[in-house]
Amino acid sequence: MNPQVGIIMGSQSDLPVMAEAAAFLEELGVPFEFTVVSAHRTPERMVTYANTARERGLKVIIAGAGGAAHLPGMVASMTSLPVIGVPVKSSNSIDGWDSILSILQMPAGIPVATVALNGAKNAGILAASIVGAYDQEVGKRMDEFKAGLKKKVEDSAEEIETKGWKASLGR
Amino acid sequence: MNPQVGIIMGSQSDLPVMAEAAAFLEELGVPFEFTVVSAHRTPERMVTYANTARERGLKVIIAGAGGAAHLPGMVASMTSLPVIGVPVKSSNSIDGWDSILSILQMPAGIPVATVALNGAKNAGILAASIVGAYDQEVGKRMDEFKAGLKKKVEDSAEEIETKGWKASLGR
Amino acid sequence: MNPQVGIIMGSQSDLPVMAEAAAFLEELGVPFEFTVVSAHRTPERMVTYANTARERGLKVIIAGAGGAAHLPGMVASMTSLPVIGVPVKSSNSIDGWDSILSILQMPAGIPVATVALNGAKNAGILAASIVGAYDQEVGKRMDEFKAGLKKKVEDSAEEIETKGWKASLGR
Amino acid sequence: MNPQVGIIMGSQSDLPVMAEAAAFLEELGVPFEFTVVSAHRTPERMVTYANTARERGLKVIIAGAGGAAHLPGMVASMTSLPVIGVPVKSSNSIDGWDSILSILQMPAGIPVATVALNGAKNAGILAASIVGAYDQEVGKRMDEFKAGLKKKVEDSAEEIETKGWKASLGR
Amino acid sequence: MNPQVGIIMGSQSDLPVMAEAAAFLEELGVPFEFTVVSAHRTPERMVTYANTARERGLKVIIAGAGGAAHLPGMVASMTSLPVIGVPVKSSNSIDGWDSILSILQMPAGIPVATVALNGAKNAGILAASIVGAYDQEVGKRMDEFKAGLKKKVEDSAEEIETKGWKASLGR
Amino acid sequence: MNPQVGIIMGSQSDLPVMAEAAAFLEELGVPFEFTVVSAHRTPERMVTYANTARERGLKVIIAGAGGAAHLPGMVASMTSLPVIGVPVKSSNSIDGWDSILSILQMPAGIPVATVALNGAKNAGILAASIVGAYDQEVGKRMDEFKAGLKKKVEDSAEEIETKGWKASLGR
Amino acid sequence: MNPQVGIIMGSQSDLPVMAEAAAFLEELGVPFEFTVVSAHRTPERMVTYANTARERGLKVIIAGAGGAAHLPGMVASMTSLPVIGVPVKSSNSIDGWDSILSILQMPAGIPVATVALNGAKNAGILAASIVGAYDQEVGKRMDEFKAGLKKKVEDSAEEIETKGWKASLGR
Amino acid sequence: MNPQVGIIMGSQSDLPVMAEAAAFLEELGVPFEFTVVSAHRTPERMVTYANTARERGLKVIIAGAGGAAHLPGMVASMTSLPVIGVPVKSSNSIDGWDSILSILQMPAGIPVATVALNGAKNAGILAASIVGAYDQEVGKRMDEFKAGLKKKVEDSAEEIETKGWKASLGR
Repeated sequence: MNPQVGIIMGSQSDLPVMAEAAAFLEELGVPFEFTVVSAHRTPERMVTYANTARERGLKVIIAGAGGAAHLPGMVASMTSLPVIGVPVKSSNSIDGWDSILSILQMPAGIPVATVALNGAKNAGILAASIVGAYDQEVGKRMDEFKAGLKKKVEDSAEEIETKGWKASLGR
Repeated sequence: MNPQVGIIMGSQSDLPVMAEAAAFLEELGVPFEFTVVSAHRTPERMVTYANTARERGLKVIIAGAGGAAHLPGMVASMTSLPVIGVPVKSSNSIDGWDSILSILQMPAGIPVATVALNGAKNAGILAASIVGAYDQEVGKRMDEFKAGLKKKVEDSAEEIETKGWKASLGR
Repeated sequence: MNPQVGIIMGSQSDLPVMAEAAAFLEELGVPFEFTVVSAHRTPERMVTYANTARERGLKVIIAGAGGAAHLPGMVASMTSLPVIGVPVKSSNSIDGWDSILSILQMPAGIPVATVALNGAKNAGILAASIVGAYDQEVGKRMDEFKAGLKKKVEDSAEEIETKGWKASLGR
Repeated sequence: MNPQVGIIMGSQSDLPVMAEAAAFLEELGVPFEFTVVSAHRTPERMVTYANTARERGLKVIIAGAGGAAHLPGMVASMTSLPVIGVPVKSSNSIDGWDSILSILQMPAGIPVATVALNGAKNAGILAASIVGAYDQEVGKRMDEFKAGLKKKVEDSAEEIETKGWKASLGR
Repeated sequence: MNPQVGIIMGSQSDLPVMAEAAAFLEELGVPFEFTVVSAHRTPERMVTYANTARERGLKVIIAGAGGAAHLPGMVASMTSLPVIGVPVKSSNSIDGWDSILSILQMPAGIPVATVALNGAKNAGILAASIVGAYDQEVGKRMDEFKAGLKKKVEDSAEEIETKGWKASLGR
Repeated sequence: MNPQVGIIMGSQSDLPVMAEAAAFLEELGVPFEFTVVSAHRTPERMVTYANTARERGLKVIIAGAGGAAHLPGMVASMTSLPVIGVPVKSSNSIDGWDSILSILQMPAGIPVATVALNGAKNAGILAASIVGAYDQEVGKRMDEFKAGLKKKVEDSAEEIETKGWKASLGR
Repeated sequence: MNPQVGIIMGSQSDLPVMAEAAAFLEELGVPFEFTVVSAHRTPERMVTYANTARERGLKVIIAGAGGAAHLPGMVASMTSLPVIGVPVKSSNSIDGWDSILSILQMPAGIPVATVALNGAKNAGILAASIVGAYDQEVGKRMDEFKAGLKKKVEDSAEEIETKGWKASLGR
Repeated sequence: MNPQVGIIMGSQSDLPVMAEAAAFLEELGVPFEFTVVSAHRTPERMVTYANTARERGLKVIIAGAGGAAHLPGMVASMTSLPVIGVPVKSSNSIDGWDSILSILQMPAGIPVATVALNGAKNAGILAASIVGAYDQEVGKRMDEFKAGLKKKVEDSAEEIETKGWKASLGR
């Protein structure tokens, strides 16, 4: 099956963060592609990627970048597909504010669906929820994923209530 | 046709901002519903809204709120549909930072697709791009919308180049 | 005796911070209960917890959470008991600002009594001061606790004045 | 009946903000006292106020101040009653951050229950919820107040759903 | 003579700010061109502009934009000429921080010479100083401009010292 | 008597703010001088001012400036007299943060005694307190000034307690 | 000779930072006293310290504190001597902003001479410059100290110019 | 050949950061000089440096400094050459904000071309782009440098596409 989600990042150094999006999509069985595209160092490659995304069958694009992060917004300007932006907290970032604001504060007309700082896992989940809004099978797996989140909290609540907070702390 | 996008806001005072999302969807011909749901004042109403969203045929939810803005995240926690969050700069907000961070910085597992401060128009565009990824007709209208943005810039460039910058300024 | 204070946290990973509230209440002899309740992953559990708090005899609720921290505000929306919020500085938090603003900047009508970042000990003290405003015995222990704080400062002042600042520094 | 809540503010210029706390307590029938006490200009008056608060029968103190706001924290240091702090956005404040941080970030041992910027109404509600945790009559009125908040949202939801969003906007 | 400086802005709404750069260059007799180029709405136009800048004889480019301001950095990525970025404080900007950080925090390899918020006049001066480093005539006029700044301060100092501060205030 | 305090500001536009320092010193009878000195536009004038300050009999210098405010720190680098810095919130300042940080965060070796944003009155008071530490007459007037601050608060407390808070509000 | 400078800090944990003020005063031969006084834990001790400072012969007070740092401002409210405030970056501080704003943003009437974050050495230098404005011997030593700062920079400039930047880096 | 770029820094402790500017200019074959000049500790040296820069044949000056960073702006005030400012994140800096704002927010009339926090490499590239705008040989090397940036991204894209993202991560 063709990739439905395209994951791109501005630099290979973003891979440890962005891999979480890939891992989630793999877990949910949503086909995806994953590569490096730099807005500043390979602008033509970015134009080609964005312009052909729809015809290649992608439904959503996830783009991660740090610092003055232009990749998500620039890709969004060249496709009518939804683009999810992941602010990456790179070295020399100013606590991530630069990356967040460069992605979030897009002008009217060109939205980027921004997730939390380093929130690549959430980008993967959001992409899957978009696919799952139309694909019943993926939607069902999303519901199961949510149920799993609940189960984990209930288990830790039970542990702390049974063992007591001191034992849970390892005191 | 059933609504495909649900627009909700935490308070009627958010209406002037949030109406821009509705106006865009109307312009693009995407059916939507629009009401008030408060996370803090009508929590049961919120639970019902979120839990029934999928079965009622919605594909995307747009939720706007100001200050400590919990509505988008709480709705996202109770549905597997994609949720778009609009930080609203309410009175007594701290320059909008409270609203942005309360919506953007969701924990792993529960993403909210956050747009710019007061960016309700972009929320409408993002919702339409999600619908348009699967509905060819809407996708085509999105492409036309993008072409319109381009035309407007080219016109203003031509004006300033022809008339000169002083005349354009009205000097 | 029934618990008078309920301590809840959004995730087991908040336990090392939140345990300080429990430790203080234990020290002061104020009965409490302590568990995990997640606004985003177990919303129904949260509704039940908040709705039954008063009838179960609780007088105050302490709720801690990090990032886009919705637990304290959501619980406050569903009970008329006082709710104390503890912003937790979780990993990937933006220096704690997200957590602080999500808890502090509640809309008119639904207050959360917010304490300092990671200030769970202060949350415990505040809860005890509320109980102690009505329970003379607890009030008396609070006065003794305050006297102890004073004694400790006086002792360190005496040490530095007697030994000299260099010796106190270990130079 | 003796005042149960003491409201103080650092300067008469804070009165328009702080009056909202008084108005709420009056509405709920919780007896209170209200005056000016400045940490910086009348330190002895502040010491006397704080030291006698408990014996005069107060159960909670609400203190509001702007800029480098020391009043709430200093009062909290001299009483074992719960102290609620209201950050006031005064002229020359830096967007309110100075006032918020001076009140919120108290050291371990001396908590202040901080509410939102200019959130005096919420301070009044929080004080009433503390009184209402022990006084059934006040607790009941708090529950009615919460029900009123819900009703107001439901009414505005009904209006917008019935009249449509354009009519509600006055378009 | 061919334009030596190219001034571009992301939107016609930036004209009142950006006109100050043009006015300064005109005053100093440095030939320039001035138009609208949007990174997000006319990406191809931007590529063409940047790619042909050097061959068209430009020595410096001044680019102004607001919000998530990608124009200066994207142009810098496609030319080896120096690019000066002007952060514009647009409506719905978050106090200008978004625009500043999107322009300033460029990754290693692609610098943008950033000036102060709304600092288009300084962008014009900086462009003239670059031209003036190589063109003696422009360099001389820059020195005269600097002398004029000094004269103006000395005049106001003399006024206040002669008339007195109260008279200068109009008291 | 020779001036004991020198007040300087970076631009005549700072006069409305800086005049408050002069007004206070006049009220207290501390002789002062007041002029314009710009770090950036009249650097030689600044050097001369700072280098001759001590020999001309000044005891303290008050320097106010906005934006990237270098005047206080540069003057401090060229004199061993105490220098008080007043951050001025100029137009295009970023909420005053630029001015505060440029004055406050001086490197080890070169302190500037920084006061609040636009706090020129406090700069005048601080200068008078320095003079008053050595001049008994000025010290006595400072004590009287402090007593006056206290009296004013007590008067407004009495008004609100006597008239009631509603009447004081003008309701 | 009696102490001329009083150094106080809110907690013994501030000693490693505040010791730099003492070390500088010792180096310059300015007599000082140094102890712990907590605004929040020993308010009466603070009142006594501030009220007797002038009669005990102090000329300047240096006060350091972290978090919601009330000590410098509260001491300034109770003496007419100049008070220098040192914001200390304590653990759980929000990057030091809380401490800076709590000390800097004092209301009109009660200035605190604020120095940089953790800038205790600069507080010592500022105190010495105040003493040195009246005491010729200390003034002379301040001039020598400034000359020493200059010498050190000139030496490092000579080293880098002679050895080259690579050798200076140790490459 | 005479130096065309002058690199200065406020303190030898800035050398590890600032060396990246020198390394890039060396790589590109642009002759430069490199030394220490402190605005606060050697103001006369700074005046001489700035005043003679043009006549010594420099075309651009790069100045780096941390904290309240006055060096770039002060040098810019005394020369009509372009000055590039590098905000250095020194110890006790407040996350670099102090340094950025002290350099960026220069008043109208005196621009500093500011680059990213610790962005000394970008300062070197920007200086080379200025030289290269007039010197064809340097301009050509700049184009080659840009091509190299592109090549590196393409290589890492190929690696990740060929090997797969897991292998690239080393999983």
